[in-house]
Amino acid sequence: MAVYTDISEEELSAFLADYPVGGLLSYKGIAEGVENSNFLLHTSEGHFILTLYEKRVNPDDLPFFIGLMEHLAAGGVTCPQPVKRADGGAIGRLAGRPAAIVTFLEGMWPRRPNAGHCRAVGAALARMHLAGEGFDLTRANALGVDGWRPLFDLAAARADEVEPGLRAEIAGELDVLEATWPKGLPAGVIHADLFPDNVFFLGADLSGLIDFYFACNDLLAYDVAVCLNAWCFERDFSFNITKGQALLAGYQTVRALSPAERDALPLLARGAALRFLLTRLYDWLNTPEGAVVTKKDPKEYLRRLRFHAQVRDARDYGLEAA
Amino acid sequence: MAVYTDISEEELSAFLADYPVGGLLSYKGIAEGVENSNFLLHTSEGHFILTLYEKRVNPDDLPFFIGLMEHLAAGGVTCPQPVKRADGGAIGRLAGRPAAIVTFLEGMWPRRPNAGHCRAVGAALARMHLAGEGFDLTRANALGVDGWRPLFDLAAARADEVEPGLRAEIAGELDVLEATWPKGLPAGVIHADLFPDNVFFLGADLSGLIDFYFACNDLLAYDVAVCLNAWCFERDFSFNITKGQALLAGYQTVRALSPAERDALPLLARGAALRFLLTRLYDWLNTPEGAVVTKKDPKEYLRRLRFHAQVRDARDYGLEAA
Repeated sequence: MAVYTDISEEELSAFLADYPVGGLLSYKGIAEGVENSNFLLHTSEGHFILTLYEKRVNPDDLPFFIGLMEHLAAGGVTCPQPVKRADGGAIGRLAGRPAAIVTFLEGMWPRRPNAGHCRAVGAALARMHLAGEGFDLTRANALGVDGWRPLFDLAAARADEVEPGLRAEIAGELDVLEATWPKGLPAGVIHADLFPDNVFFLGADLSGLIDFYFACNDLLAYDVAVCLNAWCFERDFSFNITKGQALLAGYQTVRALSPAERDALPLLARGAALRFLLTRLYDWLNTPEGAVVTKKDPKEYLRRLRFHAQVRDARDYGLEAA
Repeated sequence: MAVYTDISEEELSAFLADYPVGGLLSYKGIAEGVENSNFLLHTSEGHFILTLYEKRVNPDDLPFFIGLMEHLAAGGVTCPQPVKRADGGAIGRLAGRPAAIVTFLEGMWPRRPNAGHCRAVGAALARMHLAGEGFDLTRANALGVDGWRPLFDLAAARADEVEPGLRAEIAGELDVLEATWPKGLPAGVIHADLFPDNVFFLGADLSGLIDFYFACNDLLAYDVAVCLNAWCFERDFSFNITKGQALLAGYQTVRALSPAERDALPLLARGAALRFLLTRLYDWLNTPEGAVVTKKDPKEYLRRLRFHAQVRDARDYGLEAA
């Protein structure tokens, strides 16, 4: 939960004056998102989400994120749409921070995802991958395979505080993943953070995707691997193959995985687990006591990583024969 | 900011089934309120606030709070209205906690109150005092003059950690206030916590009062004294007599303060400052590091207390001659 920056009505109304949203009727900070400050606005024109981009977001990346939401919507993906000023711009400044307004998306994220949710998110991810084609901006994945070792270097000295032997285990994983990371697989725009809290449903129907602030260019199958980590493990960290089967089958109703992508899936899933292990480890060691953010346990991803390391092939995730 | 308890769509939908609010379209935890968990609901019938009452609220007090909101609305006060089930009840259970739904109130609380806001809140407070007449439930003020010494006893041993000499200073104030606290002044239902974040405005117009979870029976003029503390000090802790004048004049456009109430105002304001000093001191010493709640500095109310202790009479607050 997060509202790092409060705003006054005066400064908000002044900011809104340039956007075609009408008069302000109410605004409330919402307890979602961990990177930015988010407010739900009600105006005479409807409901909107206002985001103040806090320091972890590079302002130079904002045109990519904003442009991507427009590009994806044009391609049929339901996602929040940036509201533009008369001058055509979407990004402004509020309370000393870059800020933007997007349309409000109805729906609720599933606290307890079932196989039906997994099937729907698989299909939506594939549709997003297809809709991302032709988007003319690019953004490197700062948290891709090349970014893991620098991140590990910042946390390695204290890694064993979290679990004895963790430093050596991660170092070994990094060696394997860097040496064997697949090259030449289909690449494009990926969401890179499609966890359940970023996917809305109305009843059984997926109603939209949100939070494109980790989106970047990388291997499409890596995005699938992120989702296997995010959607298909139970609370006891066991992999639920029924959910994996549903997610992968859902994906392939829209976009078939190539043989090379299928073969790479265990390695990609292992890498994805390491990526979340590393960011959580860094945050665990560097979030000050007394911070308003709830610290997430890095060991949840160590457990996933160990599972992926012993997977033989993609059938262990429920992938059906081509 | 506060969402202490997250809820799943399944349990929320099951809870809502008994209330005439239609189908659920979205819900978001909101970063307001420090005692309870609050969610903004959007349903096919409109917008509502769902509150889960956390452990600081005594469930036995809920009928008072819920009934008061209905009683005040019947008397012309704009405030959230409890949504009732077919069985006539408003309070249910959700995620193991007492829970209720109230109507959504448009408007924004003023981050930087001006004299116009103060005048409006004074008038609204007086209207609430008149509208509270005839409400047939009662609730003692647990944080009234009789409650301060027991609260101080819980914090006294460590008070000097906040400021050297604070323990002795509070002890002296308690002696004075207990010995001289006024008796026989007009009493009734008071809000007892009418800070700016509990008063909504649309433009210059006050659009409603919220958060009746400290409401109780006590001296009406004590509620005025709470508002003087909450609305009329600047960030440098100086008292703004223009705001005080506006608040008191606004109040008296609706309900005249009696001579005895006027005379008691400095003492009541001193007591109100001590009340917030004591709860903040207790929270300061007892909120664990790492908690999600922002700790509020008790010394802000020590500064107010010292101001009130040297006030000669109510004219120092801007009260005009009767």
